[in-house]
Amino acid sequence: MIIGDDPILLTPGPLTTSSATRQAMLRDWGSWDAGFNRITGSLCRDLVDIVHGGDTYACVPLQGSGTFSVEAAIGTLVPRDGKVLVPQNGAYCQRILKICKYLGRAHVELKIPEDQVATPAAIEAALERDPSITHVAQVHLETGAGLLNPLREIAAVCQRHGKGLVVDAMSSFGALEIDVRDTPFDALIAASGKCLEGVPGMGFVIARKSLLEASQGNSHSLAMDLHDQYVYMQKTTQWRFTPPTHVVAALRAALDQYLAQGGQAARGARYRRNCETLIAGMAALGFKPFLKPEVQAPVIVTFHAPADSHYDFRTFYEAVRDKGYILYPGKLTTVETFRVGCIGAIDEHEIHNAVDAIARTLETMGVRHIAPQESVG
Amino acid sequence: MIIGDDPILLTPGPLTTSSATRQAMLRDWGSWDAGFNRITGSLCRDLVDIVHGGDTYACVPLQGSGTFSVEAAIGTLVPRDGKVLVPQNGAYCQRILKICKYLGRAHVELKIPEDQVATPAAIEAALERDPSITHVAQVHLETGAGLLNPLREIAAVCQRHGKGLVVDAMSSFGALEIDVRDTPFDALIAASGKCLEGVPGMGFVIARKSLLEASQGNSHSLAMDLHDQYVYMQKTTQWRFTPPTHVVAALRAALDQYLAQGGQAARGARYRRNCETLIAGMAALGFKPFLKPEVQAPVIVTFHAPADSHYDFRTFYEAVRDKGYILYPGKLTTVETFRVGCIGAIDEHEIHNAVDAIARTLETMGVRHIAPQESVG
Repeated sequence: MIIGDDPILLTPGPLTTSSATRQAMLRDWGSWDAGFNRITGSLCRDLVDIVHGGDTYACVPLQGSGTFSVEAAIGTLVPRDGKVLVPQNGAYCQRILKICKYLGRAHVELKIPEDQVATPAAIEAALERDPSITHVAQVHLETGAGLLNPLREIAAVCQRHGKGLVVDAMSSFGALEIDVRDTPFDALIAASGKCLEGVPGMGFVIARKSLLEASQGNSHSLAMDLHDQYVYMQKTTQWRFTPPTHVVAALRAALDQYLAQGGQAARGARYRRNCETLIAGMAALGFKPFLKPEVQAPVIVTFHAPADSHYDFRTFYEAVRDKGYILYPGKLTTVETFRVGCIGAIDEHEIHNAVDAIARTLETMGVRHIAPQESVG
Repeated sequence: MIIGDDPILLTPGPLTTSSATRQAMLRDWGSWDAGFNRITGSLCRDLVDIVHGGDTYACVPLQGSGTFSVEAAIGTLVPRDGKVLVPQNGAYCQRILKICKYLGRAHVELKIPEDQVATPAAIEAALERDPSITHVAQVHLETGAGLLNPLREIAAVCQRHGKGLVVDAMSSFGALEIDVRDTPFDALIAASGKCLEGVPGMGFVIARKSLLEASQGNSHSLAMDLHDQYVYMQKTTQWRFTPPTHVVAALRAALDQYLAQGGQAARGARYRRNCETLIAGMAALGFKPFLKPEVQAPVIVTFHAPADSHYDFRTFYEAVRDKGYILYPGKLTTVETFRVGCIGAIDEHEIHNAVDAIARTLETMGVRHIAPQESVG
């Protein structure tokens, strides 16, 4: 297929990357070579800088998808006798609970409806109910619905109660502001193929150096032992096991573009324009977002599926894809939805065209009743 | 840097890939899209075919480096009350022992000098000494020194004693013959960036379907649970967590070239020519391989470092790299060595030129005494 005709990914990652980022993969790197290790080192420094981590924090990269890094962070940084509070309002919070079960880490689930944020008050109450909790594992932007949890306020509660905070910032890092100076955390996890607009294949954990240094012996896994990876990298500048060299080089290129374009503020502003264009365009077709505006993050939007017997996601998805846009299925258990990402190397023109492709598809499918079922019932 | 001027990697992976393989990374794929999932499915079928696994075996791909897949295979396919015999003649055998320790799997080390193979007789004796052993974890080609263990005969011993066999075939798969019909195994592990000449970023486990199906609840890790990955993939055709889409597409392209070039027989023959050219060329300079010819695999060759006070690996490495060839440090604890890989998208002409670069470097460095120290002492 001709590269220029490739569909645009309106998904929460993998996403559409720039040509410059993909071109960076046209070279093979030796994983022992100083040139490659300089790339790793500069990446780690730049990633720490994005959260203003100074000399107090270090970045430990890890092979695999973002989930590998989430598991590695919990396995390495929560001691074996720790107890994790998981405010749960979506699929990625549930995944953290699953990780805790696999790892045998005691955990408490704080259930929250998937259209509502984790409130500092609810977290504070949970900490007061169970003083044996040692850590809070908080998803910043719950990609399941596209919801933004109030991280700064949650970090303040954790600090006040002397609890560790592990942040899954997979879908927010790089686009939304996270500053350790007002949002202190033990560890924050993100990945290459999300808002930094690299390609998927590696994650990373930004953690307090003092905690990394003190975490020897915690990990359940050799491959995912962040302490071991950190210590080895400090000593040798190399990854312990073969790094995904092309993915690393692509992330370096993506970060160069990120910084040149104005960093987090610019990235966040572009995504907000994309998101506003999307929601306005879809509203004109009759679509209603699942989330209220005040909790909607400008990264991925969940829409109610049309209340029309001619609608079927698979047909809709394929027809929109044939017009050049890849959508994403919903991830909610209770309501039929689909999701549209606003992130990647795209701007509001692509979003405008995607909405147009959606409109044409619905017309062809004969879908007329767009408003969600609860409003038409 | 100009692509055409990039150095050739004479390392055990990452290695030099073909332009067609790298070009396959110029497209972004949606990980939910049917087109991408067809790639995954066809890859898995082709990988099973390489070992003639028929319908009895399945391939489970996994994000991360090869070591992630080795750990996943042991964690998922050796029950928690299993006991693993590890014939140990090098760094990668030691890594399996380390994995067993992390995972809390009982294990027995069978120590073998790093220039000698694991013999079927020694393995048989170890199994007879300790009948509680349930599995043998065998490295096929020990990359530490470049040594080939006699896998077929070892598989026969395991079968005769009713023991499971987990094979780390990281550096042999695709280049050296492995046929389940005469070399039965429970599981075999390899990775994208080795003899298949893809880029690094994913591994895979080829395992008996019956064992995969029966392995629920064994894994210590969510991310590395091969049972969960297998079941989910059977049901959905998708990876559980974000796949390294560009790495997967590159491996598909690399496999297409592999099959078009004549598969394992042709790949093995090219590597043998590379290896013979290397050993002959280096011998003409006075270099002696660490291993005897009968145990040397045609993948990576360990040479004794020159017995000359003007020699120093770092200087040597950098000067050879500046001439366009990336060598690899030795991985032996007792003798000073360096390693030269014979694998990747290269032929004997590149090897010839690399030997020439080594000769010119030694001349510039003033290194004259090449023969190893034990012969000049």
